[in-house]
Amino acid sequence: SKFEYVKQFETEDKLLPNCWIVVRIDGKGFHRFAETHNYIKPNDERALDLMSKSAETVMEEFKDIVISYGQSDEYSFVFRKATNAYNRRASKLATNVVSLFASSFVFNWPRYFGTTMMQYPPAFDSRTVLYPSDKNLRDYLSWRQADCHINNLYNTCFWKLIQEKNLTPAQSQERLKGTMSSDKNELLFKEFEINYNNLPALHRKGTILVRTPKTSMENGDLDLSLQLQHTGSARGQRSRSTLSNKRSSRPNIERLHVDIIGEQFWSDYPDILNPK
Amino acid sequence: SKFEYVKQFETEDKLLPNCWIVVRIDGKGFHRFAETHNYIKPNDERALDLMSKSAETVMEEFKDIVISYGQSDEYSFVFRKATNAYNRRASKLATNVVSLFASSFVFNWPRYFGTTMMQYPPAFDSRTVLYPSDKNLRDYLSWRQADCHINNLYNTCFWKLIQEKNLTPAQSQERLKGTMSSDKNELLFKEFEINYNNLPALHRKGTILVRTPKTSMENGDLDLSLQLQHTGSARGQRSRSTLSNKRSSRPNIERLHVDIIGEQFWSDYPDILNPK
Amino acid sequence: SKFEYVKQFETEDKLLPNCWIVVRIDGKGFHRFAETHNYIKPNDERALDLMSKSAETVMEEFKDIVISYGQSDEYSFVFRKATNAYNRRASKLATNVVSLFASSFVFNWPRYFGTTMMQYPPAFDSRTVLYPSDKNLRDYLSWRQADCHINNLYNTCFWKLIQEKNLTPAQSQERLKGTMSSDKNELLFKEFEINYNNLPALHRKGTILVRTPKTSMENGDLDLSLQLQHTGSARGQRSRSTLSNKRSSRPNIERLHVDIIGEQFWSDYPDILNPK
Amino acid sequence: SKFEYVKQFETEDKLLPNCWIVVRIDGKGFHRFAETHNYIKPNDERALDLMSKSAETVMEEFKDIVISYGQSDEYSFVFRKATNAYNRRASKLATNVVSLFASSFVFNWPRYFGTTMMQYPPAFDSRTVLYPSDKNLRDYLSWRQADCHINNLYNTCFWKLIQEKNLTPAQSQERLKGTMSSDKNELLFKEFEINYNNLPALHRKGTILVRTPKTSMENGDLDLSLQLQHTGSARGQRSRSTLSNKRSSRPNIERLHVDIIGEQFWSDYPDILNPK
Ligand SMILES: Nc1nc2c(ncn2[C@H]2C[C@H](O)[C@@H](COP(=O)(O)OP(=O)(O)OP(=O)(O)O)O2)c(=O)[nH]1
Ligand SMILES: Nc1nc2c(ncn2[C@H]2C[C@H](O)[C@@H](COP(=O)(O)OP(=O)(O)OP(=O)(O)O)O2)c(=O)[nH]1
Ligand SMILES: Nc1nc2c(ncn2[C@H]2C[C@H](O)[C@@H](COP(=O)(O)OP(=O)(O)OP(=O)(O)O)O2)c(=O)[nH]1
Ligand SMILES: Nc1nc2c(ncn2[C@H]2C[C@H](O)[C@@H](COP(=O)(O)OP(=O)(O)OP(=O)(O)O)O2)c(=O)[nH]1
Ligand SMILES: O=P(O)(O)OP(=O)(O)OP(=O)(O)O
Ligand SMILES: O=P(O)(O)OP(=O)(O)OP(=O)(O)O
Ligand SMILES: O=P(O)(O)OP(=O)(O)OP(=O)(O)O
Ligand SMILES: O=P(O)(O)OP(=O)(O)OP(=O)(O)O
Ligand SMILES: [Mg+2]
Ligand SMILES: [Mg+2]
Ligand SMILES: [Mg+2]
Ligand SMILES: [Mg+2]
Ligand SMILES: [Mg+2]
Ligand SMILES: [Mg+2]
Ligand SMILES: [Mg+2]
Ligand SMILES: [Mg+2]
Ligand SMILES: [Mg+2]
Ligand SMILES: [Mg+2]
Ligand SMILES: [Mg+2]
Ligand SMILES: [Mg+2]
Repeated sequence: SKFEYVKQFETEDKLLPNCWIVVRIDGKGFHRFAETHNYIKPNDERALDLMSKSAETVMEEFKDIVISYGQSDEYSFVFRKATNAYNRRASKLATNVVSLFASSFVFNWPRYFGTTMMQYPPAFDSRTVLYPSDKNLRDYLSWRQADCHINNLYNTCFWKLIQEKNLTPAQSQERLKGTMSSDKNELLFKEFEINYNNLPALHRKGTILVRTPKTSMENGDLDLSLQLQHTGSARGQRSRSTLSNKRSSRPNIERLHVDIIGEQFWSDYPDILNPK
Repeated sequence: SKFEYVKQFETEDKLLPNCWIVVRIDGKGFHRFAETHNYIKPNDERALDLMSKSAETVMEEFKDIVISYGQSDEYSFVFRKATNAYNRRASKLATNVVSLFASSFVFNWPRYFGTTMMQYPPAFDSRTVLYPSDKNLRDYLSWRQADCHINNLYNTCFWKLIQEKNLTPAQSQERLKGTMSSDKNELLFKEFEINYNNLPALHRKGTILVRTPKTSMENGDLDLSLQLQHTGSARGQRSRSTLSNKRSSRPNIERLHVDIIGEQFWSDYPDILNPK
Repeated sequence: SKFEYVKQFETEDKLLPNCWIVVRIDGKGFHRFAETHNYIKPNDERALDLMSKSAETVMEEFKDIVISYGQSDEYSFVFRKATNAYNRRASKLATNVVSLFASSFVFNWPRYFGTTMMQYPPAFDSRTVLYPSDKNLRDYLSWRQADCHINNLYNTCFWKLIQEKNLTPAQSQERLKGTMSSDKNELLFKEFEINYNNLPALHRKGTILVRTPKTSMENGDLDLSLQLQHTGSARGQRSRSTLSNKRSSRPNIERLHVDIIGEQFWSDYPDILNPK
Repeated sequence: SKFEYVKQFETEDKLLPNCWIVVRIDGKGFHRFAETHNYIKPNDERALDLMSKSAETVMEEFKDIVISYGQSDEYSFVFRKATNAYNRRASKLATNVVSLFASSFVFNWPRYFGTTMMQYPPAFDSRTVLYPSDKNLRDYLSWRQADCHINNLYNTCFWKLIQEKNLTPAQSQERLKGTMSSDKNELLFKEFEINYNNLPALHRKGTILVRTPKTSMENGDLDLSLQLQHTGSARGQRSRSTLSNKRSSRPNIERLHVDIIGEQFWSDYPDILNPK
């Protein structure tokens, strides 16, 4: 029709080739959403698990995602450097990922929150970011995990002071102002007999989603899994979750709560940076 | 932390000022989604209403949207030229709109589909497009409504031939190949005694969402509404839906199924192109 | 060859349709370039004329430029809204314009600077900017001309104080600190018996380049020109320069030094905003 | 002033960090420019040297350029990955480079073309391209050098057939249609007793500009240079040109006409990919 010319006002947004593509989504106004739905403070495992469930749905749809990382109300999805998904169109990637995440979040809500009804549908923002080198990508993921650690340490202290020492939020904030990590660790230990490192890895490390090699799943090589389980390496932990994955019928994607800043994880999972 | 430098790899995507911003969303693979959920062919009013309900949620959240237009599995949202929402950041606008739309779609599904369970969570893509002039914007909306008309006329014929003349899909397609609009109108009239113009406006025109001026709502000026109701202009139709809006507690946004290609609509709703 | 894939790393940069495209170029480090070549302070007419000569070369090459405006070491070129030059590719427009400007600047240097040799070849930066509405475009040009006025008023005072009152640059700067336009006008009048408005229009208004309608040139309609010459409107001034244009064999582009902030200019030259 | 808002219509164009930035310039309509100025066919050494002289001017201004490559009417400039020149703004880089190149081209014309006057000032286009990996960058440069080779082989045959066998351009083109590289080599050898590999390296390889380490220049370590001169490696050739550089007072940048597709060059010049 004579109106079709308006199509030409759309702009191309192809992303540079040979770069890692990260899509990061983040809940809009989740401070309020968490309050409204009585999220447990500072970490609500139902909420975190629902986030990861939604991220898994995204990974099932977009096969070129090689690793995902989530914490709090955010998730990052890493597409392999050579991906040609949506012809690398930035808005297609950002919007399809985030809308699938959002609709999965609502879809799966009852499974995690039971009779607690969702009060209103949440929104998430989404962006694409390019990382040219493997080091840049690892630093990106380290940035998010370091952020998880810093926030969790602070929030743990903040809420302990409120919940167990009856401080007001203002007093708790004041108490923590200017403290270093070591101060907070000490506070937890001295005042609450908590060894921070013994808190759940889910809270301290966030969640890493990686793909399980198909063969090991098909083989159902439980013995090997059980063996690895004791090594303490990420690979060992993977094996455990592999087992539960099988039970919960989420084959091929596993959840980890391990350090991804150091070398160990990356040598345990060499395929992530060098996908076939 | 030493990882924070990676934040600098994000790119600015501010949209040109003084242009209409259109965000168009479109269901991903809705051919399959419609099949899976037994959408009525060619128009499933439950589905179309759910789309509009989701669009209303978006309009309630983003006050700078002055008009929305939907048909099939798509919706377009028009932000006023001077909007400063998200500082005009393209990805923020596209992603917040589409994720809220998607989560609202799932959230409200049961209200429209009753006991028909959603089988899987749907995704939508989203894009921003800029239109510098009012004419460009109107042409954009005309383009979408002309698309609605063309598809609906075709689909109506296509499914009538299948459902009532027992043609196979291939035969029906063959029968319609190369036909003009007038041919299809005639086909409907001669073979099925259908006057295309008497088919539901929802199917032929799609759905326009506009904001009702607050004052008329607060005044509850029903008499005026009833009067207008008989004029046959869009404004009259608006009044009708205003009434039902009140009943359904969706104040301030009304649904229209009128022509937006001609002048009438725009002189009925002068505020859209010149928002206060 | 197997290396051709690298071509795909180039990115599209098509500019939004239906917007005015402004290409503004600006001399790199012209503070130093002016010093090195003993530019007269604060306005060197040789330099300003050479700039305009170079701009005319650009306008002769790019027929879709409808108006240009220059002052100091900068020039702005306005392409008509509907231009399809270089398929509206931003980098093509910005770079072809600026490189032609620069090479023309060096090429024509001797004509304006005679035996003063150019010491080193100058660089210029260049950018494209989009303006959706006529008002935006006029405000852009007004911005540049207001900038010309403000700088010229300041510089005129600054150098008068140095050159005729023997102030040091620091003293002159100090004397002018915090003064308003009216103060500077008064200073010029009281201390130097200069009525600012009587200074050359070239200095106060900068240079506007517009295209002379071909017919009037071909007709050689001198009588009309001479008549108009006395009206005092921009059109009258145009006529004068038309005559000199003919003599200097620069047909079809005329130089004006008139106000472009008010209405007069735009009603004198209606074709600029509505090119055929 | 009230017009300053128009500044906000400018868009940011910062280039992704940690990528090689290539600025490639190319003469506009040099087919005609070469004809007009009677360029020798197919290679005019005056023209090629003037191009390289202009490129050297660019490298003297932009210290973050680590290597440049030129052939025909084009030149590519490679900025180191970590450059912060102009804060990595794409249009600043592309336009400052190209305008300096163009003005240097005109500025230095007489030195190379003597009494042959320039007839009109030339324009050049310019673009930025990002390459994330060293391999991508090398492939880019290989692409340009392979292009030089292919064109030169073709053009050499094409003009020999015209100039020495009196073919018309159309006949010459016909004669070469569908020939492979090997066919053209054979043609040159059989019909003109030319061994293609003995033609000037300038024609076959184009021109590489690299920076000479300052120390060796300051040391004037001629003995070492003379020694290397005989190795046949790129480094040896560099030394020769180092000597002539000294004579021609173009310190620190040297011209090479060597293969940059293979490994040798890159191991001879390790600093290019790993600048300090
Ligand atoms: N109680 C509780 N709150 C959580 C949990 N996970 C996330 N949140 C809340 C706490 C934070 O206020 C919020 C995430 O911070 P953001 O910086 O993303 O802020 P928010 O989403 O409010 O605003 P935004 O729209 O992203 O700018 O989500 C949780 O497990 N428990
Ligand atoms: N039966 C039925 N189907 C509908 C209705 N509304 C939309 N659809 C289906 C028919 C079309 O196949 C599809 C919309 O066409 P699209 O061009 O958006 O294709 P689709 O979403 O399959 O692919 P895409 O991911 O957008 O490229 O949605 C409806 O009311 N009834
Ligand atoms: N004496 C004299 N100087 C002039 C004339 N026209 C321009 N200039 C000089 C004065 C200013 O220092 C300079 C223009 O100011 P800019 O803001 O463009 O600064 P500049 O080019 O030095 O730096 P840039 O590379 O543009 O950031 O050019 C003139 O007619 N006479
Ligand atoms: N005779 C002669 N011609 C040359 C020499 N170097 C370059 N040229 C001419 C031959 C080609 O026609 C032209 C370069 O080809 P291009 O593809 O860049 O085409 P051209 O510049 O004409 O058009 P463009 O504006 O770049 O699209 O320059 C030379 O050394 N001798
Ligand atoms: O949203 P935050 O707090 O992580 O901070 P940001 O991502 O820098 O801000 P924005 O969401 O506005 O891009
Ligand atoms: O999706 P369609 O069919 O409307 O066509 P398009 O929008 O031009 O295609 P795309 O979704 O790939 O931008
Ligand atoms: O160059 P100026 O002084 O006009 O200021 P700018 O244009 O805002 O700065 P830049 O040249 O860095 O875009
Ligand atoms: O100019 P060419 O022939 O190298 O080809 P191109 O670069 O692909 O074309 P353009 O100059 O239009 O970008
Ligand atoms: Mg944020
Ligand atoms: Mg958030
Ligand atoms: Mg967050
Ligand atoms: Mg589409
Ligand atoms: Mg669709
Ligand atoms: Mg659709
Ligand atoms: Mg500047
Ligand atoms: Mg300047
Ligand atoms: Mg300037
Ligand atoms: Mg080209
Ligand atoms: Mg060329
Ligand atoms: Mg070329």
